[in-house]
Amino acid sequence: MAGKLFGLGVGPGDPWLLTLKAKKILDEVDVIAYPVKEKGEKSTALHIIKEVIDLKGREIAEIIFRMDRSLEKREQCRREAADQLMRILDTGKNVAMITLGDTAIYSTYTYVHQMIKKAGYETEITAGISSFSGGAAMAEISLVEGNEGLGVVSSLKGRENLEKALDCFENLVLMKAGSSMELIREVLSERGLLDHAMVFSNIGLCDEYIGALDMERQYGYFTTIIVKRNGLF
Amino acid sequence: MAGKLFGLGVGPGDPWLLTLKAKKILDEVDVIAYPVKEKGEKSTALHIIKEVIDLKGREIAEIIFRMDRSLEKREQCRREAADQLMRILDTGKNVAMITLGDTAIYSTYTYVHQMIKKAGYETEITAGISSFSGGAAMAEISLVEGNEGLGVVSSLKGRENLEKALDCFENLVLMKAGSSMELIREVLSERGLLDHAMVFSNIGLCDEYIGALDMERQYGYFTTIIVKRNGLF
Repeated sequence: MAGKLFGLGVGPGDPWLLTLKAKKILDEVDVIAYPVKEKGEKSTALHIIKEVIDLKGREIAEIIFRMDRSLEKREQCRREAADQLMRILDTGKNVAMITLGDTAIYSTYTYVHQMIKKAGYETEITAGISSFSGGAAMAEISLVEGNEGLGVVSSLKGRENLEKALDCFENLVLMKAGSSMELIREVLSERGLLDHAMVFSNIGLCDEYIGALDMERQYGYFTTIIVKRNGLF
Repeated sequence: MAGKLFGLGVGPGDPWLLTLKAKKILDEVDVIAYPVKEKGEKSTALHIIKEVIDLKGREIAEIIFRMDRSLEKREQCRREAADQLMRILDTGKNVAMITLGDTAIYSTYTYVHQMIKKAGYETEITAGISSFSGGAAMAEISLVEGNEGLGVVSSLKGRENLEKALDCFENLVLMKAGSSMELIREVLSERGLLDHAMVFSNIGLCDEYIGALDMERQYGYFTTIIVKRNGLF
C-alpha cells in the first residue's frame, strides 16, 4: 500500500511558530522532504524545523524543483518533483513535505500536491503562519481592521500593478519585493506613504531586518513590505 | 512590577493549529483572558484551546468587548476592555488574551493592544493561522499562485465593494460573509464564477460546512468564501 503525502507550512522563520499539528506529523512520518532549486542547496525550511524536531536518525529527502523562465519547462520540473515524491510514496512510506510560510500562499508545493492527489495518493495539507502574519505580529501592528480590505501581491510586475493594488485596498502586502524596491520607494513617496510602510527582510536568518524602507540596505528575495494607507499604528 | 500582556491567535478551529509558541505561553501565564460581547457568553476561542491546554485550576478572565453601531461608543467599549486588562496586569500577573484566527486580521484585540502598549506595559503578539489559510488547507486548494494577487475583504458594503475587489485580483477571500450571501451569489452568477467559489462556515463547530455556495443553507457570522477566478483546483 502506498504511503500518504503530508504538505505542511513551517511558518516564516521562528521554529516556535510551527503548529502543534505540523510538529506531530513531522515527529511521526517516515520521511521528511524539503524543496531545493539545485542539488545540495541549503534549505531555510529544514533549518527552521531543526530546533523543535529531532532529526537524528530520520530519513530526509531533498526534492529538486528547478526554476525556469519558461512555463513549459517549469511544469516539466514540477512533474519531475512529483515523480520523485511518488517513488518514495510507492515504497509505502509516509512523507511530509515542508514549505516556508503557508502552503496556500505562493507555494510551489501546491503544484505537486494537485498532481499527486490526482494520481490517486492519499494527501493532507496543514496550514502554516504566513510571512505577513508573522511579520505583523513581530512589529505589533495589524494587517487589516474594521471596514478595510487587504491586498497581497508578489513579485510586482511594474508600476501599474502596484498602483492598482494601492487604489483598491487600504492595506497591502508586497511579497518577494527585493527586486522592486526602487519602484516601491518611488510610488510610495509620490503618495506620501513612505512612513506608512514597514519592511521585513530575511526573517529568522542572521541578517534579519524589520524597519523603515531604507534604500541604503541590500534586500534579498524574501523581502516583504506591509503598507497601511491609514497609518502603521 | 506590572505583568506582561500576550496577544495570541488560536487559529480557525482545530486546536492542533495552535502554534508551539501559543501553547507554551498559555501553559505559563498567570491568567488566560478571552473576549466576549456580553457577560457569560460562550467563547469559541476558549472552546478551541481546551483540548490542548489543561485549564484545571487556571485563572480565566472574561473581557467584555461590547459591540455598538456608533464608533464613539465602540471606542469607549474598547477603552473599558483595555482598563479591565490593565487592572489585572497591575496586580503583577502576566495575561494571555486569546483571539480567533490571527491577531492581525480583523481582530478586535488590535485596539486594546495599542492602548495597553501606549500606556507603557510590556506586550508581545503571537500570530495564529487565519481562517482562510486554515480553510484552504482543509479544502486542499491554494489561495494565490505565481503572478496572481489575493484580496481579503470583510462584511461587504454593497455590490460595488465586491465588484471592485473581483476586478482587482484573481483570488478573493470574503470574511464575515454570512449576511451578504444573496449579493455574493448574484454577482458570482453574473460573472460565471459560482463553480469557482468555496464556502467555509462555522469551522470547528458541530455544524461545520465546507462546500459549494448552497443557498438552501443558513450561514452564520463566521462564514468565509474563497473565490478563485482561474478555478479552484
